[in-house]
Amino acid sequence: MAAPRRGWLCAQSWLLLVICAIVPGVPSVRAEDGYALWLRYAPVSAAAARETLSRLGPPELLGASSSVTDMAQAELARGLSAMLGVSGKGVVLARADRLAGSDIALAAPLAGLPEGAYRIVTRRDGRLTVIARDDSGLLYGSFALLRGIAGGDWLTEGRRLTEIDMMSVPILPLRMIDHWDNPDGFVERGYAGRSIFDWWLLPDHLDPRLIDYARANASIGINAVVVNNVNASPLMLTPRYLVKLARLADAWRPFGIRLFLSARFSAPRDIGGLATADPLDPAVRRWWKDKADEIYAAIPDFGGFLVKANSEGQPGPQDYGRTHADGANMLAQALGKRGTVIWRAFVYASSAETDRVKLAYDEFKPLDGKFAPNVLLQVKNGPLDFQPREPFHPLFGAMPKTRMMLEAQITKEYLGFATHLAFLGPLWKEVLDADTGHGKGARLTVAETLAKGGMAGVANIGADRNWTGGHFDQANWYAFGRLAWNPALPSHRIAREWAAQTFSPNPAFLGPVTAMMEESRQAVVDYMTPLGLAHQMGTGHHYGPAPWVSDLARPEWNPVYYNRADASGVGFERTAKGSDALAQYAPTVAAQWADPATMDEAYLLWFHHVPWGYRTRSGRTLWAELVARYDRGAAAVDRISVQWTALAPYVDSERFGAVADFLRIQQREARWWRDASIAYFGSVCGCALPPGVRPPAHPLDWYRALRFPDAPGNP
Amino acid sequence: MAAPRRGWLCAQSWLLLVICAIVPGVPSVRAEDGYALWLRYAPVSAAAARETLSRLGPPELLGASSSVTDMAQAELARGLSAMLGVSGKGVVLARADRLAGSDIALAAPLAGLPEGAYRIVTRRDGRLTVIARDDSGLLYGSFALLRGIAGGDWLTEGRRLTEIDMMSVPILPLRMIDHWDNPDGFVERGYAGRSIFDWWLLPDHLDPRLIDYARANASIGINAVVVNNVNASPLMLTPRYLVKLARLADAWRPFGIRLFLSARFSAPRDIGGLATADPLDPAVRRWWKDKADEIYAAIPDFGGFLVKANSEGQPGPQDYGRTHADGANMLAQALGKRGTVIWRAFVYASSAETDRVKLAYDEFKPLDGKFAPNVLLQVKNGPLDFQPREPFHPLFGAMPKTRMMLEAQITKEYLGFATHLAFLGPLWKEVLDADTGHGKGARLTVAETLAKGGMAGVANIGADRNWTGGHFDQANWYAFGRLAWNPALPSHRIAREWAAQTFSPNPAFLGPVTAMMEESRQAVVDYMTPLGLAHQMGTGHHYGPAPWVSDLARPEWNPVYYNRADASGVGFERTAKGSDALAQYAPTVAAQWADPATMDEAYLLWFHHVPWGYRTRSGRTLWAELVARYDRGAAAVDRISVQWTALAPYVDSERFGAVADFLRIQQREARWWRDASIAYFGSVCGCALPPGVRPPAHPLDWYRALRFPDAPGNP
Repeated sequence: MAAPRRGWLCAQSWLLLVICAIVPGVPSVRAEDGYALWLRYAPVSAAAARETLSRLGPPELLGASSSVTDMAQAELARGLSAMLGVSGKGVVLARADRLAGSDIALAAPLAGLPEGAYRIVTRRDGRLTVIARDDSGLLYGSFALLRGIAGGDWLTEGRRLTEIDMMSVPILPLRMIDHWDNPDGFVERGYAGRSIFDWWLLPDHLDPRLIDYARANASIGINAVVVNNVNASPLMLTPRYLVKLARLADAWRPFGIRLFLSARFSAPRDIGGLATADPLDPAVRRWWKDKADEIYAAIPDFGGFLVKANSEGQPGPQDYGRTHADGANMLAQALGKRGTVIWRAFVYASSAETDRVKLAYDEFKPLDGKFAPNVLLQVKNGPLDFQPREPFHPLFGAMPKTRMMLEAQITKEYLGFATHLAFLGPLWKEVLDADTGHGKGARLTVAETLAKGGMAGVANIGADRNWTGGHFDQANWYAFGRLAWNPALPSHRIAREWAAQTFSPNPAFLGPVTAMMEESRQAVVDYMTPLGLAHQMGTGHHYGPAPWVSDLARPEWNPVYYNRADASGVGFERTAKGSDALAQYAPTVAAQWADPATMDEAYLLWFHHVPWGYRTRSGRTLWAELVARYDRGAAAVDRISVQWTALAPYVDSERFGAVADFLRIQQREARWWRDASIAYFGSVCGCALPPGVRPPAHPLDWYRALRFPDAPGNP
Repeated sequence: MAAPRRGWLCAQSWLLLVICAIVPGVPSVRAEDGYALWLRYAPVSAAAARETLSRLGPPELLGASSSVTDMAQAELARGLSAMLGVSGKGVVLARADRLAGSDIALAAPLAGLPEGAYRIVTRRDGRLTVIARDDSGLLYGSFALLRGIAGGDWLTEGRRLTEIDMMSVPILPLRMIDHWDNPDGFVERGYAGRSIFDWWLLPDHLDPRLIDYARANASIGINAVVVNNVNASPLMLTPRYLVKLARLADAWRPFGIRLFLSARFSAPRDIGGLATADPLDPAVRRWWKDKADEIYAAIPDFGGFLVKANSEGQPGPQDYGRTHADGANMLAQALGKRGTVIWRAFVYASSAETDRVKLAYDEFKPLDGKFAPNVLLQVKNGPLDFQPREPFHPLFGAMPKTRMMLEAQITKEYLGFATHLAFLGPLWKEVLDADTGHGKGARLTVAETLAKGGMAGVANIGADRNWTGGHFDQANWYAFGRLAWNPALPSHRIAREWAAQTFSPNPAFLGPVTAMMEESRQAVVDYMTPLGLAHQMGTGHHYGPAPWVSDLARPEWNPVYYNRADASGVGFERTAKGSDALAQYAPTVAAQWADPATMDEAYLLWFHHVPWGYRTRSGRTLWAELVARYDRGAAAVDRISVQWTALAPYVDSERFGAVADFLRIQQREARWWRDASIAYFGSVCGCALPPGVRPPAHPLDWYRALRFPDAPGNP
């Protein structure tokens, strides 16, 4: 039988999906391998659909079409047909300026709201309408409409689609995914296979996967992607790569996504033939200006440069005695109004013996007000490096004249790679909701300091079939996007809407799975680094426990540098008695962490060196409390694993089995973290195990001898 | 809607496939992304199916089941349901010893045939029966039955399935895929993404893909897989990896596939704590014996070791003044009757100035008769290194007391990576069918020298969704397996049966596509290295033309070493006037290549340094003939590209578009090879372009300046 061409195939596939939706007992035909992400568009309950949705179908557009509205319509058609199997007209996409008559009032609430805002409302004629002032709003609104149906809430709680009236506004202007992908396909700190970007085949061949990638991003409001590693290869700036990048930018434009590049600061030397990369050198400035012009000729809406400079061996302006502001502003001038420079604040190299977590603040705080208007400062959520828990970074709120980006790590470099189930919504919420204390009497949350910037998330995406290695890691990609759109969204609501679309909207499933997800990150904190410990993992690859490591070249690379465990106690003294990193926070904030007796013990050992016999809030000694937390973490994973088993009826076998396999790994590794950590700290403390506590499975030396030269993600 | 569990889902999916097969106009629902390989099981013409196949359906097994027969039945059920959509009993799998009555005669022709042989025949009661003496024969026969239906021949040429009577015998005992995959996921000379082996997640999680991989291999008769690179990491022999390997071996056993390992010869030093790896050292011998015992405790049917020793920097017995036989036999003794050592003959390091293609013969010919019975010598098809065309390797037939394996390269390191369409059937047939001249008056083909060994193919398989990068590269995996099963199969027949299963059995498609495939390899020879040239590609990555390169450390790494182009002529003199490599062949064979005037000009410059003005058989000068061949190659790709466009009606849009994209790349790169080669050789020759010939698009220096540090597959 001759295989059909695209048009015919699509038509037939749709017909088939309709059959699937209509014929009782015939499930969705798509392989449940996770590729579809949260955009599965599984058929929704036929009864509810028939009852309320008969008017839905191919969407209508009021006003001129564009590549963006084309995508919105195509996605709506795809999703509605797959989920509802109904035809006929019903959904309307309306640009606000095309509304007429009494409908005009529907657009009024959108006045003055930022680009991308949308309203979904039932018009007087009964038709469900997505209203926005710009095309991107229509696209986001279309995905929101599909999410509402797929998530189940719109149908299962007695509501009808004819009663919908919702509005959504993107709170942060820049919602960005940062890929740490190298041109050769290696993904630094990637645990989901090779890079999705096959630069070798671009521009000649565009993997269809890159379209699905853009769809997924657009569906959660992502509007910017940095395609290459911050440890940047200058190759990406060569003419041969610009044509590749242009093909990608063209493909993503209809999804409202702008392409950004990580730029190697020494590129004028590496590929430009210049003898220097000094940002104040006229030839260097000229080179970057010419390079920017060359890029904009190929990519008219190029977003700009992300730069990691003078950090971990990367070149930067300090190589020439210049400041970070000198470097950033030089690039900002090259881009001009066309684009943005995103300058990373993650620096910690210092020859002086000091506290690593203080260095970024020391370096950048004095530069407040010195950056050009089109420079954003990108600051990691905490002052160390994406640990399971850190206090928020003291730069948030401390640089009122600087536009700020928060850098989150979606890939779980420090939270169990792709194998551990750790939903990061609670971690990010903890930071976003934190009061910086810089509000002059009022609350000024970290999220509020990002109002002129945004959020960047380091991708957990690779060429693995399910994109993220672990199926639940898809939730972190999803949650990042949703929080970048609106940092006020509750974590549990995000977890629930993700799980409903990704697995099943059945409330009997959603309740337990949301609870599992919500407690999962605290479990990781507990079995890896409880009570404010940090950076206790294996050297280089960051896999597994290694609290004993003390022989690395730089002091601040060593776990013992962070745990400071000795016979007297454990923890890093960061009050005025120690490094005084606490003083980098606003006084009200510093005060809340200053006293072990009154502070949140989640940060206890981050800020204080505490005697082993210290009585914690629980009444246990510090040592006993530490052991109890490790135990609590390992027990939580055991419990989650049991809970998952009970959810088997709601999940297809392939994904169910993969998650079960991964949970078994996590159980074993949580136990390993717990055992090795207890063995080490017990030996330093000289403390006996509290009564009833299970001793580590092996002696300390057994754990110390383990080697994993093949751990993934490590360059 | 709750997603269903495995059993129910499978049942429902099958129902759906049946619906697809029955409902006219509803195509196969599987995504046409190439993942299904040649096992697509697309619905066959309903009319023919209804006419002749009503008796087919779930297969019945005579005799005891095993994991292998379970797989055979499952595959038959899967394929028959998908293709025919019929139920009811009809196919019988019968072990020969379970036949009774008059049926016994059906098994008679199988007597004395090798393991895996099968017969497919219609029994007197009308039921289609697969008969074999062993389980693997039932598995191979089941795949053959499905191939017969999917390929179209059984149904479209007036035959009925009730008239089938065919028998097939595996001619070579060992049919092996060699992966050059590293533990970190990098595939040396791989152009289809990361390794399919995720060692990090094994043994806890087995990617379902590895089952589909085994199915694909079993379907073409592959019975052995070397899972790691011959440039071997000793990590693979550590206890941590043995449990991973055991999980894989368990998963593949039901498909008749034995797992082999590439072993690093220095492992006793690398991971064994010994001071030496001397094969005659008792402690070393003990270490390998213990290691073998450890492996067999985990993998009772472990196949054995593949070893690259004293080649390209790998350790080996010569490091200790021992011979290759000393090294191989030591490992053979460690394995004992349990397994096989496969020792590679690919060595060429020599301090003396000599002809690289002579070295393997010089090294190994004297060792004939010195290898233990469970040692196989693995010899590349030609004496150089997988070039687009080489004469067969002189060791074939020259070592009658040694069991020989032919090593073919399925991955196209030298034939355009995964982007060029080059069907390798004709290349391998050329070698397999060659008369070695060692038959003492009778023909003794290369294939016949492999009767006690087999064929190994270096995999072109990676984690890309379509497995091989280019869709047509799947054909090379397929052809390799089919030829290893039976080297006598005609290349065009293999191409046709692959294309029928992979795209469409429509004769209007199969004719043109088979012709395209059959001419494609000669096209590559013509535009890259015509008339017996070889090894003219870019340094390291082997991408693109670089005939001018002369500055590499070892003389035999340089293209100029092979082309020997100078003002007087071009080509490597390998007669007695030169290196006398010709003398390594049997006299009758040497005679056929000794005289430029009478020899096959395909090997002209391989064996002779020929003056530019020499008159070739065409009447053209050598220079003009060279130019004509480059032109012919580039023109062939242009023609193939046009032919493909005409085949659009028969191919789904995703795969059609990808092939079209790749052909555009090939057109450009063929032109580049042609232009750069003509520019270079013209400059050396000092010859003007023949009249009417298009000059190169750029001057020679432009080609010389090109750099591709990011070319894939290069370690």
